[in-house]
Amino acid sequence: MERYKVILAYDGTAFSGMQRQASERTVQGEVETALRKLGWSGKSILFAGRTDAGVHASGQVVAFDIEWKHSSPDLQNAMNATLPRDLAVRQVAETADDFHPRYDAKNRQYRYRLYCQPQRDPLKKRFAWRVWPAPNLRNLNAGAKLLLGEHDFAAFGTPQKEAGPTKRKVLRAEWVQSGEDEFVFTVEANAFLYHMVRRMVGLLVKVGQGFKEKDRVFEALNEAKELIKEMAPAQGLSLVGVDYE
Amino acid sequence: MERYKVILAYDGTAFSGMQRQASERTVQGEVETALRKLGWSGKSILFAGRTDAGVHASGQVVAFDIEWKHSSPDLQNAMNATLPRDLAVRQVAETADDFHPRYDAKNRQYRYRLYCQPQRDPLKKRFAWRVWPAPNLRNLNAGAKLLLGEHDFAAFGTPQKEAGPTKRKVLRAEWVQSGEDEFVFTVEANAFLYHMVRRMVGLLVKVGQGFKEKDRVFEALNEAKELIKEMAPAQGLSLVGVDYE
Repeated sequence: MERYKVILAYDGTAFSGMQRQASERTVQGEVETALRKLGWSGKSILFAGRTDAGVHASGQVVAFDIEWKHSSPDLQNAMNATLPRDLAVRQVAETADDFHPRYDAKNRQYRYRLYCQPQRDPLKKRFAWRVWPAPNLRNLNAGAKLLLGEHDFAAFGTPQKEAGPTKRKVLRAEWVQSGEDEFVFTVEANAFLYHMVRRMVGLLVKVGQGFKEKDRVFEALNEAKELIKEMAPAQGLSLVGVDYE
Repeated sequence: MERYKVILAYDGTAFSGMQRQASERTVQGEVETALRKLGWSGKSILFAGRTDAGVHASGQVVAFDIEWKHSSPDLQNAMNATLPRDLAVRQVAETADDFHPRYDAKNRQYRYRLYCQPQRDPLKKRFAWRVWPAPNLRNLNAGAKLLLGEHDFAAFGTPQKEAGPTKRKVLRAEWVQSGEDEFVFTVEANAFLYHMVRRMVGLLVKVGQGFKEKDRVFEALNEAKELIKEMAPAQGLSLVGVDYE
Protein backbone atom coordinates (compact mmCIF):
# COMPACT_ATOMS: atom_id res chain seq x y z
CA MET A 1 0.00 0.00 0.00
CA GLU A 2 1.42 3.36 -1.09
CA ARG A 3 0.18 6.91 -0.61
CA TYR A 4 -0.19 8.94 -3.81
CA LYS A 5 -0.35 12.69 -4.24
CA VAL A 6 -2.52 13.62 -7.21
CA ILE A 7 -3.13 17.01 -8.87
CA LEU A 8 -6.64 17.42 -10.28
CA ALA A 9 -8.19 19.83 -12.77
CA TYR A 10 -11.93 20.25 -13.12
CA ASP A 11 -14.58 22.36 -14.75
CA GLY A 12 -16.68 23.06 -11.67
CA THR A 13 -19.87 23.97 -13.54
CA ALA A 14 -21.61 20.63 -13.10
CA PHE A 15 -20.29 19.79 -9.62
CA SER A 16 -21.83 20.62 -6.25
CA GLY A 17 -18.33 21.44 -5.07
CA MET A 18 -15.33 19.38 -4.01
CA GLN A 19 -16.56 17.73 -0.82
CA ARG A 20 -18.67 14.55 -0.97
CA GLN A 21 -22.39 14.99 -0.23
CA ALA A 22 -25.03 12.30 -0.31
CA SER A 23 -27.02 12.46 -3.58
CA GLU A 24 -25.07 15.37 -5.07
CA ARG A 25 -22.48 15.13 -7.81
CA THR A 26 -19.15 16.18 -6.28
CA VAL A 27 -15.49 16.00 -7.28
CA GLN A 28 -14.64 13.85 -4.26
CA GLY A 29 -17.50 11.50 -5.07
CA GLU A 30 -16.42 11.07 -8.70
CA VAL A 31 -12.76 10.52 -7.77
CA GLU A 32 -13.70 7.90 -5.17
CA THR A 33 -15.99 6.12 -7.64
CA ALA A 34 -13.17 6.02 -10.21
CA LEU A 35 -10.63 4.79 -7.65
CA ARG A 36 -12.91 1.97 -6.51
CA LYS A 37 -12.93 0.67 -10.08
CA LEU A 38 -9.12 0.57 -9.82
CA GLY A 39 -9.14 -1.49 -6.62
CA TRP A 40 -9.12 1.28 -3.99
CA SER A 41 -10.98 0.29 -0.85
CA GLY A 42 -10.44 3.33 1.41
CA LYS A 43 -13.20 5.26 3.13
CA SER A 44 -12.31 8.78 1.99
CA ILE A 45 -9.67 10.47 -0.07
CA LEU A 46 -7.93 13.49 1.48
CA PHE A 47 -7.95 16.86 -0.30
CA ALA A 48 -6.40 20.32 0.01
CA GLY A 49 -9.22 22.78 -0.55
CA ARG A 50 -13.00 22.57 -0.20
CA THR A 51 -14.04 24.44 -3.36
CA ASP A 52 -17.69 25.58 -3.65
CA ALA A 53 -20.27 24.51 -6.19
CA GLY A 54 -19.31 25.99 -9.56
CA VAL A 55 -15.70 26.79 -8.64
CA HIS A 56 -13.04 25.34 -10.96
CA ALA A 57 -9.55 24.00 -10.30
CA SER A 58 -6.38 23.47 -12.24
CA GLY A 59 -4.35 22.56 -9.14
CA GLN A 60 -6.49 20.83 -6.52
CA VAL A 61 -4.42 18.29 -4.56
CA VAL A 62 -5.76 14.98 -3.27
CA ALA A 63 -4.12 11.98 -1.62
CA PHE A 64 -5.09 8.36 -1.00
CA ASP A 65 -3.55 4.95 -0.24
CA ILE A 66 -3.81 2.26 -2.88
CA GLU A 67 -2.22 -1.07 -3.73
CA TRP A 68 -0.96 -0.29 -7.23
CA LYS A 69 1.46 -2.61 -8.99
CA HIS A 70 2.20 -0.38 -12.00
CA SER A 71 3.90 3.01 -12.46
CA SER A 72 2.58 6.43 -11.44
CA PRO A 73 2.00 7.44 -15.11
CA ASP A 74 -0.04 4.23 -15.47
CA LEU A 75 -2.16 5.26 -12.50
CA GLN A 76 -2.67 8.68 -14.10
CA ASN A 77 -3.75 7.08 -17.38
CA ALA A 78 -6.04 4.61 -15.63
CA MET A 79 -7.69 7.39 -13.61
CA ASN A 80 -8.13 9.62 -16.69
CA ALA A 81 -9.70 6.73 -18.59
CA THR A 82 -12.18 6.23 -15.74
CA LEU A 83 -13.01 9.79 -14.63
CA PRO A 84 -15.81 11.81 -16.28
CA ARG A 85 -14.81 14.34 -18.93
CA ASP A 86 -15.08 17.44 -16.74
CA LEU A 87 -12.48 16.10 -14.30
CA ALA A 88 -8.89 15.01 -15.02
CA VAL A 89 -5.63 14.06 -13.32
CA ARG A 90 -2.71 16.33 -14.22
CA GLN A 91 -0.01 14.69 -12.14
CA VAL A 92 0.51 11.60 -9.97
CA ALA A 93 3.42 10.96 -7.62
CA GLU A 94 4.17 8.60 -4.75
CA THR A 95 4.43 10.50 -1.50
CA ALA A 96 5.13 10.03 2.21
CA ASP A 97 2.77 7.71 4.13
CA ASP A 98 1.65 10.58 6.36
CA PHE A 99 1.31 13.27 3.68
CA HIS A 100 -1.90 15.28 4.16
CA PRO A 101 -2.86 17.68 1.34
CA ARG A 102 -4.64 20.11 3.67
CA TYR A 103 -2.60 20.03 6.89
CA ASP A 104 0.76 20.01 5.11
CA ALA A 105 -0.09 22.86 2.73
CA LYS A 106 2.11 25.93 3.15
CA ASN A 107 0.00 28.17 0.97
CA ARG A 108 -2.69 28.21 -1.70
CA GLN A 109 -3.15 30.16 -4.89
CA TYR A 110 -6.49 31.13 -6.42
CA ARG A 111 -7.30 32.99 -9.60
CA TYR A 112 -10.43 34.99 -10.39
CA ARG A 113 -11.34 36.07 -13.92
CA LEU A 114 -13.60 38.97 -15.00
CA TYR A 115 -14.77 39.95 -18.45
CA CYS A 116 -16.05 43.43 -19.09
CA GLN A 117 -18.74 43.75 -21.73
CA PRO A 118 -22.09 45.53 -21.68
CA GLN A 119 -23.88 42.29 -22.67
CA ARG A 120 -23.31 38.68 -21.64
CA ASP A 121 -20.89 36.60 -23.72
CA PRO A 122 -21.67 32.88 -23.99
CA LEU A 123 -18.04 32.10 -24.85
CA LYS A 124 -16.71 33.67 -21.65
CA LYS A 125 -19.35 33.23 -19.00
CA ARG A 126 -18.45 29.66 -18.06
CA PHE A 127 -15.08 30.68 -16.59
CA ALA A 128 -15.49 34.39 -15.83
CA TRP A 129 -17.78 36.93 -14.19
CA ARG A 130 -19.25 39.68 -16.38
CA VAL A 131 -18.63 43.12 -14.86
CA TRP A 132 -19.91 46.35 -16.35
CA PRO A 133 -18.84 49.15 -16.35
CA ALA A 134 -15.24 47.95 -16.62
CA PRO A 135 -13.11 48.59 -13.53
CA ASN A 136 -9.89 50.59 -13.67
CA LEU A 137 -6.76 48.43 -13.33
CA ARG A 138 -4.92 50.93 -11.14
CA ASN A 139 -7.86 51.18 -8.74
CA LEU A 140 -8.19 47.40 -8.59
CA ASN A 141 -4.54 47.09 -7.61
CA ALA A 142 -4.64 50.00 -5.15
CA GLY A 143 -7.31 48.06 -3.27
CA ALA A 144 -5.59 44.69 -3.67
CA LYS A 145 -2.33 45.99 -2.19
CA LEU A 146 -4.08 46.68 1.12
CA LEU A 147 -4.81 42.97 1.48
CA LEU A 148 -1.13 42.01 1.57
CA GLY A 149 0.33 40.80 4.84
CA GLU A 150 -1.21 39.32 7.97
CA HIS A 151 -4.69 40.59 8.85
CA ASP A 152 -7.88 39.53 10.51
CA PHE A 153 -10.05 38.60 7.52
CA ALA A 154 -13.24 38.01 9.56
CA ALA A 155 -15.17 40.41 7.30
CA PHE A 156 -14.16 38.39 4.23
CA GLY A 157 -15.24 34.93 5.31
CA THR A 158 -15.96 32.37 7.96
CA PRO A 159 -13.50 29.77 9.27
CA GLN A 160 -14.13 26.09 8.61
CA LYS A 161 -14.54 25.44 12.34
CA GLU A 162 -17.06 27.67 14.10
CA ALA A 163 -15.32 30.43 16.09
CA GLY A 164 -11.94 29.32 14.69
CA PRO A 165 -9.17 31.82 14.01
CA THR A 166 -9.72 34.35 11.19
CA LYS A 167 -6.17 35.68 10.82
CA ARG A 168 -4.61 34.86 7.48
CA LYS A 169 -1.41 35.92 5.74
CA VAL A 170 -1.78 37.13 2.16
CA LEU A 171 1.44 36.79 0.15
CA ARG A 172 0.24 37.99 -3.22
CA ALA A 173 -2.82 39.91 -4.44
CA GLU A 174 -2.52 41.28 -7.92
CA TRP A 175 -4.71 42.13 -10.91
CA VAL A 176 -3.51 41.97 -14.51
CA GLN A 177 -5.36 42.83 -17.67
CA SER A 178 -5.62 40.01 -20.20
CA GLY A 179 -6.63 40.87 -23.75
CA GLU A 180 -8.98 43.74 -24.42
CA ASP A 181 -11.66 43.17 -21.85
CA GLU A 182 -10.48 40.67 -19.25
CA PHE A 183 -9.00 41.13 -15.78
CA VAL A 184 -7.40 38.33 -13.79
CA PHE A 185 -6.85 38.44 -10.03
CA THR A 186 -4.19 36.16 -8.53
CA VAL A 187 -4.20 35.77 -4.77
CA GLU A 188 -1.99 33.63 -2.60
CA ALA A 189 -2.27 33.10 1.16
CA ASN A 190 -1.24 30.60 3.80
CA ALA A 191 -4.93 29.63 3.99
CA PHE A 192 -8.34 31.04 3.10
CA LEU A 193 -11.61 31.46 4.93
CA TYR A 194 -14.86 30.25 3.40
CA HIS A 195 -15.83 32.58 0.46
CA MET A 196 -12.83 34.82 1.19
CA VAL A 197 -11.61 35.20 -2.41
CA ARG A 198 -15.11 35.85 -3.73
CA ARG A 199 -15.64 38.64 -1.16
CA MET A 200 -12.22 40.12 -1.93
CA VAL A 201 -13.16 40.24 -5.60
CA GLY A 202 -16.66 41.56 -4.91
CA LEU A 203 -15.28 44.48 -2.90
CA LEU A 204 -12.27 45.18 -5.15
CA VAL A 205 -14.48 45.35 -8.24
CA LYS A 206 -16.59 48.08 -6.57
CA VAL A 207 -13.37 49.93 -5.79
CA GLY A 208 -12.11 49.37 -9.34
CA GLN A 209 -15.34 50.75 -10.77
CA GLY A 210 -15.07 53.79 -8.55
CA PHE A 211 -18.29 52.98 -6.64
CA LYS A 212 -16.38 52.57 -3.38
CA GLU A 213 -13.21 54.13 -1.99
CA LYS A 214 -10.21 51.88 -1.38
CA ASP A 215 -10.44 52.88 2.30
CA ARG A 216 -13.33 50.44 2.46
CA VAL A 217 -10.80 47.63 2.10
CA PHE A 218 -8.78 49.06 4.97
CA GLU A 219 -11.92 49.38 7.10
CA ALA A 220 -13.00 45.82 6.27
CA LEU A 221 -9.65 44.57 7.56
CA ASN A 222 -9.51 46.68 10.67
CA GLU A 223 -12.92 47.80 11.81
CA ALA A 224 -15.50 45.51 10.26
CA LYS A 225 -18.18 44.03 12.48
CA GLU A 226 -19.94 42.01 9.81
CA LEU A 227 -19.35 40.11 6.58
CA ILE A 228 -18.84 42.10 3.39
CA LYS A 229 -22.00 42.00 1.30
CA GLU A 230 -20.34 42.04 -2.12
CA MET A 231 -19.58 38.50 -3.22
CA ALA A 232 -18.39 37.60 -6.71
CA PRO A 233 -20.07 34.53 -8.25
CA ALA A 234 -18.45 31.09 -8.24
CA GLN A 235 -17.82 30.64 -11.97
CA GLY A 236 -14.92 33.14 -12.15
CA LEU A 237 -12.89 31.35 -9.47
CA SER A 238 -10.23 28.63 -9.85
CA LEU A 239 -7.96 26.94 -7.33
CA VAL A 240 -4.71 27.01 -9.28
CA GLY A 241 -2.21 25.53 -6.89
CA VAL A 242 -1.17 24.41 -3.41
CA ASP A 243 2.40 24.62 -2.16
CA TYR A 244 4.10 22.25 0.24
CA GLU A 245 7.47 22.41 2.02
CA MET B 1 -41.23 46.75 -40.92
CA GLU B 2 -37.44 47.19 -40.75
CA ARG B 3 -34.59 44.84 -41.54
CA TYR B 4 -32.07 44.35 -38.70
CA LYS B 5 -28.53 43.08 -38.85
CA VAL B 6 -27.59 41.24 -35.68
CA ILE B 7 -24.23 39.86 -34.51
CA LEU B 8 -24.51 36.68 -32.46
CA ALA B 9 -22.15 34.84 -30.11
CA TYR B 10 -22.73 31.26 -29.03
CA ASP B 11 -21.12 28.38 -27.23
CA GLY B 12 -21.73 25.70 -29.85
CA THR B 13 -21.36 22.73 -27.49
CA ALA B 14 -25.06 22.08 -26.99
CA PHE B 15 -26.25 23.04 -30.50
CA SER B 16 -26.65 20.79 -33.54
CA GLY B 17 -25.16 23.63 -35.58
CA MET B 18 -26.49 26.91 -36.92
CA GLN B 19 -29.08 25.79 -39.45
CA ARG B 20 -32.60 24.84 -38.32
CA GLN B 21 -33.40 21.11 -38.30
CA ALA B 22 -36.62 19.50 -37.19
CA SER B 23 -36.29 18.09 -33.64
CA GLU B 24 -32.69 19.24 -33.11
CA ARG B 25 -31.60 22.18 -30.99
CA THR B 26 -30.04 24.71 -33.38
CA VAL B 27 -28.98 28.36 -33.18
CA GLN B 28 -31.41 29.36 -35.93
CA GLY B 29 -34.24 27.55 -34.14
CA GLU B 30 -33.53 29.27 -30.82
CA VAL B 31 -33.24 32.72 -32.41
CA GLU B 32 -36.52 32.27 -34.27
CA THR B 33 -38.27 31.07 -31.12
CA ALA B 34 -37.01 34.14 -29.24
CA LEU B 35 -38.02 36.51 -32.06
CA ARG B 36 -41.55 35.07 -32.20
CA LYS B 37 -41.96 36.04 -28.55
CA LEU B 38 -41.06 39.59 -29.60
CA GLY B 39 -43.69 39.71 -32.35
CA TRP B 40 -41.67 38.46 -35.33
CA SER B 41 -43.81 36.53 -37.79
CA GLY B 42 -41.32 35.72 -40.57
CA LYS B 43 -40.67 32.25 -41.95
CA SER B 44 -36.90 32.16 -41.63
CA ILE B 45 -34.11 34.42 -40.49
CA LEU B 46 -31.14 34.84 -42.85
CA PHE B 47 -27.62 34.04 -41.69
CA ALA B 48 -24.02 34.34 -42.88
CA GLY B 49 -22.37 31.01 -42.11
CA ARG B 50 -23.71 27.51 -41.61
CA THR B 51 -21.54 26.44 -38.64
CA ASP B 52 -21.43 22.71 -37.74
CA ALA B 53 -22.56 21.04 -34.56
CA GLY B 54 -20.18 22.00 -31.77
CA VAL B 55 -18.64 24.98 -33.58
CA HIS B 56 -18.74 28.29 -31.70
CA ALA B 57 -19.18 31.86 -32.87
CA SER B 58 -18.37 35.32 -31.61
CA GLY B 59 -19.33 37.01 -34.89
CA GLN B 60 -22.12 35.14 -36.66
CA VAL B 61 -24.35 37.55 -38.58
CA VAL B 62 -28.10 37.14 -39.00
CA ALA B 63 -30.82 39.37 -40.45
CA PHE B 64 -34.61 39.52 -40.25
CA ASP B 65 -37.53 41.92 -40.75
CA ILE B 66 -39.53 42.94 -37.71
CA GLU B 67 -42.01 45.61 -36.69
CA TRP B 68 -40.14 47.11 -33.72
CA LYS B 69 -41.26 50.36 -32.17
CA HIS B 70 -38.31 50.81 -29.81
CA SER B 71 -34.57 51.41 -30.29
CA SER B 72 -31.96 48.94 -31.54
CA PRO B 73 -30.37 48.66 -28.05
CA ASP B 74 -33.86 47.83 -26.73
CA LEU B 75 -34.14 45.06 -29.31
CA GLN B 76 -30.76 43.73 -28.21
CA ASN B 77 -31.81 43.75 -24.56
CA ALA B 78 -35.14 42.11 -25.34
CA MET B 79 -33.45 39.37 -27.38
CA ASN B 80 -30.82 38.72 -24.68
CA ALA B 81 -33.52 38.48 -22.05
CA THR B 82 -35.31 35.87 -24.17
CA LEU B 83 -32.45 33.79 -25.63
CA PRO B 84 -30.98 30.80 -23.76
CA ARG B 85 -27.76 31.35 -21.85
CA ASP B 86 -25.41 29.78 -24.40
CA LEU B 87 -26.48 32.26 -27.09
CA ALA B 88 -26.36 36.07 -27.02
CA VAL B 89 -26.71 39.14 -29.21
CA ARG B 90 -23.58 41.30 -29.35
CA GLN B 91 -24.82 44.03 -31.66
CA VAL B 92 -28.03 45.14 -33.35
CA ALA B 93 -28.36 47.70 -36.14
CA GLU B 94 -30.98 48.69 -38.68
CA THR B 95 -29.84 47.82 -42.17
CA ALA B 96 -30.90 48.05 -45.83
CA ASP B 97 -34.14 46.28 -46.79
CA ASP B 98 -32.28 43.98 -49.16
CA PHE B 99 -29.27 43.20 -46.92
CA HIS B 100 -28.40 39.49 -47.02
CA PRO B 101 -25.79 38.28 -44.50
CA ARG B 102 -24.53 35.48 -46.77
CA TYR B 103 -24.77 36.92 -50.28
CA ASP B 104 -23.44 40.34 -49.30
CA ALA B 105 -20.49 39.01 -47.29
CA LYS B 106 -17.12 40.03 -48.66
CA ASN B 107 -15.10 37.71 -46.47
CA ARG B 108 -15.25 35.60 -43.33
CA GLN B 109 -12.85 35.06 -40.47
CA TYR B 110 -12.53 31.87 -38.42
CA ARG B 111 -10.32 31.04 -35.48
CA TYR B 112 -9.14 27.60 -34.37
CA ARG B 113 -7.60 26.97 -30.95
CA LEU B 114 -5.27 24.13 -29.90
CA TYR B 115 -3.93 23.27 -26.48
CA CYS B 116 -0.89 21.08 -26.12
CA GLN B 117 -0.76 18.89 -23.07
CA PRO B 118 -0.04 15.18 -22.65
CA GLN B 119 -3.33 14.67 -20.78
CA ARG B 120 -6.77 16.17 -21.32
CA ASP B 121 -7.59 19.43 -19.50
CA PRO B 122 -11.23 19.91 -18.47
CA LEU B 123 -10.76 23.70 -18.32
CA LYS B 124 -9.62 23.93 -21.94
CA LYS B 125 -11.34 21.17 -23.84
CA ARG B 126 -14.63 22.99 -24.38
CA PHE B 127 -13.09 25.59 -26.69
CA ALA B 128 -9.89 23.93 -27.93
CA TRP B 129 -8.50 20.72 -29.42
CA ARG B 130 -5.87 18.84 -27.44
CA VAL B 131 -2.82 18.09 -29.59
CA TRP B 132 0.19 16.11 -28.39
CA PRO B 133 3.10 16.24 -29.11
CA ALA B 134 3.04 20.03 -29.41
CA PRO B 135 3.55 21.33 -32.96
CA ASN B 136 6.33 23.74 -33.85
CA LEU B 137 5.10 27.29 -34.51
CA ARG B 138 7.47 27.88 -37.43
CA ASN B 139 6.36 24.67 -39.14
CA LEU B 140 2.70 25.53 -38.61
CA ASN B 141 3.20 28.88 -40.30
CA ALA B 142 5.37 27.49 -43.10
CA GLY B 143 2.40 25.28 -44.02
CA ALA B 144 -0.19 28.01 -43.47
CA LYS B 145 1.61 30.42 -45.80
CA LEU B 146 1.04 28.05 -48.73
CA LEU B 147 -2.72 28.47 -48.31
CA LEU B 148 -2.61 32.20 -49.05
CA GLY B 149 -4.07 33.44 -52.33
CA GLU B 150 -6.56 31.96 -54.75
CA HIS B 151 -6.52 28.18 -55.06
CA ASP B 152 -8.78 25.25 -55.78
CA PHE B 153 -9.58 24.00 -52.28
CA ALA B 154 -11.47 20.88 -53.45
CA ALA B 155 -9.25 18.67 -51.24
CA PHE B 156 -10.19 20.74 -48.19
CA GLY B 157 -13.96 20.64 -48.44
CA THR B 158 -17.14 20.35 -50.41
CA PRO B 159 -19.18 23.27 -51.78
CA GLN B 160 -22.64 23.95 -50.42
CA LYS B 161 -24.19 23.18 -53.81
CA GLU B 162 -23.21 19.84 -55.32
CA ALA B 163 -20.57 20.26 -58.04
CA GLY B 164 -20.36 23.98 -57.26
CA PRO B 165 -17.09 25.89 -57.64
CA THR B 166 -14.27 25.05 -55.21
CA LYS B 167 -11.97 28.01 -55.84
CA ARG B 168 -11.56 30.27 -52.83
CA LYS B 169 -9.31 33.20 -52.01
CA VAL B 170 -7.48 33.04 -48.66
CA LEU B 171 -6.48 36.48 -47.39
CA ARG B 172 -4.94 35.52 -44.08
CA ALA B 173 -3.74 32.24 -42.56
CA GLU B 174 -1.61 32.64 -39.49
CA TRP B 175 -0.76 30.80 -36.29
CA VAL B 176 0.22 32.54 -33.06
CA GLN B 177 1.19 31.05 -29.74
CA SER B 178 -0.93 32.07 -26.78
CA GLY B 179 0.35 31.43 -23.29
CA GLU B 180 2.56 28.44 -22.60
CA ASP B 181 0.73 25.72 -24.40
CA GLU B 182 -1.88 27.18 -26.75
CA PHE B 183 -1.81 27.88 -30.48
CA VAL B 184 -4.42 29.94 -32.29
CA PHE B 185 -4.99 29.83 -36.06
CA THR B 186 -6.72 32.79 -37.72
CA VAL B 187 -7.91 32.29 -41.27
CA GLU B 188 -9.78 34.70 -43.49
CA ALA B 189 -11.18 34.00 -46.96
CA ASN B 190 -13.81 35.34 -49.32
CA ALA B 191 -15.78 32.16 -48.56
CA PHE B 192 -15.21 28.67 -47.17
CA LEU B 193 -16.12 25.17 -48.29
CA TYR B 194 -17.82 22.79 -45.91
CA HIS B 195 -15.28 21.59 -43.25
CA MET B 196 -12.51 23.59 -44.97
CA VAL B 197 -11.01 25.18 -41.83
CA ARG B 198 -11.09 21.91 -39.91
CA ARG B 199 -9.19 20.11 -42.71
CA MET B 200 -6.68 22.99 -42.95
CA VAL B 201 -6.02 22.65 -39.24
CA GLY B 202 -5.92 18.84 -39.36
CA LEU B 203 -3.24 18.89 -42.05
CA LEU B 204 -1.27 21.85 -40.65
CA VAL B 205 -1.03 20.22 -37.23
CA LYS B 206 0.57 17.12 -38.82
CA VAL B 207 3.03 19.43 -40.58
CA GLY B 208 3.63 21.35 -37.34
CA GLN B 209 4.33 18.13 -35.48
CA GLY B 210 6.78 17.06 -38.16
CA PHE B 211 4.71 14.02 -39.16
CA LYS B 212 4.13 15.41 -42.66
CA GLU B 213 6.16 17.67 -44.94
CA LYS B 214 4.77 21.08 -45.83
CA ASP B 215 4.85 19.94 -49.49
CA ARG B 216 1.72 18.01 -48.61
CA VAL B 217 -0.14 21.31 -48.36
CA PHE B 218 1.14 22.29 -51.79
CA GLU B 219 0.08 18.92 -53.21
CA ALA B 220 -3.35 19.15 -51.61
CA LEU B 221 -3.88 22.49 -53.36
CA ASN B 222 -2.55 21.46 -56.76
CA GLU B 223 -2.70 17.73 -57.29
CA ALA B 224 -5.21 16.27 -54.86
CA LYS B 225 -7.82 13.88 -56.16
CA GLU B 226 -9.63 13.30 -52.89
CA LEU B 227 -10.53 14.96 -49.59
CA ILE B 228 -7.82 15.32 -46.95
CA LYS B 229 -8.35 12.73 -44.23
CA GLU B 230 -7.10 14.81 -41.33
CA MET B 231 -9.95 16.81 -39.86
CA ALA B 232 -9.70 18.74 -36.60
CA PRO B 233 -12.70 18.39 -34.25
CA ALA B 234 -15.47 20.99 -34.06
CA GLN B 235 -14.90 22.31 -30.55
CA GLY B 236 -11.72 24.27 -31.40
CA LEU B 237 -13.42 26.29 -34.14
CA SER B 238 -15.14 29.71 -33.92
CA LEU B 239 -16.64 31.97 -36.55
CA VAL B 240 -15.24 35.30 -35.40
CA GLY B 241 -16.46 37.73 -38.00
CA VAL B 242 -17.98 38.48 -41.38
CA ASP B 243 -17.06 41.58 -43.41
CA TYR B 244 -19.37 43.54 -45.71
CA GLU B 245 -18.67 46.35 -48.18
